[in-house]
Amino acid sequence: MDRDCDAQWFDFLREDYCQGFPAYCGFQVTEVTFGKFSTALEVKAQHSQQDGFVHAGVMATMADHTAGYAAYTTVTRQERILTIEFKINYLRPALGSTVLCRAQVIKGGKTIIVAESEVFAVKDEKESLAAKATVTLMAVPARKLSR
Amino acid sequence: MDRDCDAQWFDFLREDYCQGFPAYCGFQVTEVTFGKFSTALEVKAQHSQQDGFVHAGVMATMADHTAGYAAYTTVTRQERILTIEFKINYLRPALGSTVLCRAQVIKGGKTIIVAESEVFAVKDEKESLAAKATVTLMAVPARKLSR
Amino acid sequence: MDRDCDAQWFDFLREDYCQGFPAYCGFQVTEVTFGKFSTALEVKAQHSQQDGFVHAGVMATMADHTAGYAAYTTVTRQERILTIEFKINYLRPALGSTVLCRAQVIKGGKTIIVAESEVFAVKDEKESLAAKATVTLMAVPARKLSR
Amino acid sequence: MDRDCDAQWFDFLREDYCQGFPAYCGFQVTEVTFGKFSTALEVKAQHSQQDGFVHAGVMATMADHTAGYAAYTTVTRQERILTIEFKINYLRPALGSTVLCRAQVIKGGKTIIVAESEVFAVKDEKESLAAKATVTLMAVPARKLSR
Repeated sequence: MDRDCDAQWFDFLREDYCQGFPAYCGFQVTEVTFGKFSTALEVKAQHSQQDGFVHAGVMATMADHTAGYAAYTTVTRQERILTIEFKINYLRPALGSTVLCRAQVIKGGKTIIVAESEVFAVKDEKESLAAKATVTLMAVPARKLSR
Repeated sequence: MDRDCDAQWFDFLREDYCQGFPAYCGFQVTEVTFGKFSTALEVKAQHSQQDGFVHAGVMATMADHTAGYAAYTTVTRQERILTIEFKINYLRPALGSTVLCRAQVIKGGKTIIVAESEVFAVKDEKESLAAKATVTLMAVPARKLSR
Repeated sequence: MDRDCDAQWFDFLREDYCQGFPAYCGFQVTEVTFGKFSTALEVKAQHSQQDGFVHAGVMATMADHTAGYAAYTTVTRQERILTIEFKINYLRPALGSTVLCRAQVIKGGKTIIVAESEVFAVKDEKESLAAKATVTLMAVPARKLSR
Repeated sequence: MDRDCDAQWFDFLREDYCQGFPAYCGFQVTEVTFGKFSTALEVKAQHSQQDGFVHAGVMATMADHTAGYAAYTTVTRQERILTIEFKINYLRPALGSTVLCRAQVIKGGKTIIVAESEVFAVKDEKESLAAKATVTLMAVPARKLSR
């Protein structure tokens, strides 16, 4: 793809990212380049777990979805991305006003794509790495996903 | 713990489960026994991903949270459970009116507890295994989590 | 495939299993059926880690390779199986004279196959579950693997 | 620990690394600094899998063991390191004369330590990333491991 096509594709993905569950969660796209996708979340009461930290599921969802869209930047418009599996390690309890996620493809491919997501909690303007995920994705021709 | 204590503890956990993000997602507790926890979700538009399936993040959150509460059934009231890490495989695109999660502890312990969660999509009264997760949890004295 | 073909295929896989690194490790095939593969290891000094337990790598290798051959039982002879990724939890330090591995496919497929492996340490004739792995595999046409 | 202590500790770990299964595999230590451990393997016939590539289990063992020793560099001599779990993604079939592993701690801690390992195949003097692992480890007082 040339630069203009990329720009149009990335604009489409910015819109496409925010629907369904990720929109319900409140994730927002902050930056898109080839193989990379970054998102942010303004933390609210509904994102917490029983001890007041940001819920592991919020961070897992953000890590998975952002990694998926990092993979989308590397495929054609005729393909859709599905998550085969992911693994996430929680490194510190996440407290703060904002959560950021930065995902990047570490191995591209025609079928199997592997991406990593880092999730940061931002408190008093200081970022700390709260979680890190490895996500295995599959590119599937869009026509095969017709329900 | 004797049976009465267990019953009281399990009743407490049923309530405790549904708060913050899991309540926002709409998860409901269906069954609690020692080392096992089962939950259900009535699927709505807000749970979907870009192709109309139940979002991977919904299933990951349910798998993680339900596994965490399966672990809670095995520890004392002076302890809290944190997720160290989990891994989830998506076996089939999830379509249906209901999603069920059944978690059970496969290795108890004083500090490290390992649980598995199976996530089922229910369509036309037929269950299909949509995802399976392995969750590593840590029991932490409640007093250490004061913020 | 009919029964005779299956039997021939399974006999081939029994032989094929024991070569290269798995042969060097000393793994032996004990049972093969459709979607299932079981192996055993007589524990020797060379299988230990620094504290005298069976090394995590021995169990990981056994879990991966046995899961791979469980997948092989479900595909045609024109295909080869590659490991995309796996995750293994160590549940107890493994001590004993023998290690057993039982793998089974939990989700078949034309491209992506998911299998689980359970690894048992046998001491004084008693089995204990030492590790459990989830393995994501890919079936690849043999002709694509020519080097 | 001061610098001299570190140097002695690192020398001890270089020796300690090569015993039991890792010695049988042929892994050698190349570099040790605080939180980092690097190893190398000269590839031989016994390291292969059925298609002639370096076996997934060789890379998994190397990733696990090297990550464990990266963790060892961050704890006291009264502690031992056990693997709780790990996950490894295979990014490319590994071919070459040498395999390298570079592990580093990404989150230290008194009990739980998380490290990452990258495994490279070296062919014609060119390195390619063949696998990447995330390893969750636990520091345990040595006296608790007496058998």
